[in-house]
Amino acid sequence: MSNIAIVEQFIAAWNRVDLDAVCALMTDDVIYHNMPMDPIEGLAAARQVMEGFKTEQIDWQMLNISEAGNVVLTERLDRFRYGDKWLELPVMGAFEFQDGKIKVWRDYFDMNTYMTQIQAITGAT
Amino acid sequence: MSNIAIVEQFIAAWNRVDLDAVCALMTDDVIYHNMPMDPIEGLAAARQVMEGFKTEQIDWQMLNISEAGNVVLTERLDRFRYGDKWLELPVMGAFEFQDGKIKVWRDYFDMNTYMTQIQAITGAT
Repeated sequence: MSNIAIVEQFIAAWNRVDLDAVCALMTDDVIYHNMPMDPIEGLAAARQVMEGFKTEQIDWQMLNISEAGNVVLTERLDRFRYGDKWLELPVMGAFEFQDGKIKVWRDYFDMNTYMTQIQAITGAT
Repeated sequence: MSNIAIVEQFIAAWNRVDLDAVCALMTDDVIYHNMPMDPIEGLAAARQVMEGFKTEQIDWQMLNISEAGNVVLTERLDRFRYGDKWLELPVMGAFEFQDGKIKVWRDYFDMNTYMTQIQAITGAT
């Protein structure tokens, strides 16, 4: 399976909110780095963060995907549903591979674009 | 010249702070979209924004670059020097092409990562 196909399966697993399938595509020592925050090291810690998303539905739309060497680059619109409202986050992400699994995942986005929407949806201040 | 080579020339022009060369690689109706902000439409408006950077030196480092169809995806570390201090901004960018020029440029980054550094450097609050 090509690295692009693995990333496409990875996003499809997210869209089923199937964390077992998500984690099965990452190495045990994966680094999950949302660039505005500190990197998360290791699959157990990454899973804990991912379980915290508490969304009712996920719809991550792939806008562009390409690869060079061992790295797959993606441009996406990551959508999360809370009740009847959708949070929409423009994201680009880079995925590095080892032995057919994701070894490093870096996502680039504007944290304030996320925070203002989550606060509007949940009513948090 | 391949689209990847055009993007590499574009970044090289930035690193010379050569705005004439930068603009020569964009279409007249270019859309320049820093994703946390509104898109800027047209080369004249884009140039005005780019002239506002007021940096003394630019060093944009290409970490990864790949292409699919008409789109080039990049992962970069964009560095700007102010006096003896460097501002470092993790960025991913997508470039769409028309007739060998950049027609759409979307950059994804965390605005707060930029603002906290520029405020520390300039002393602005």
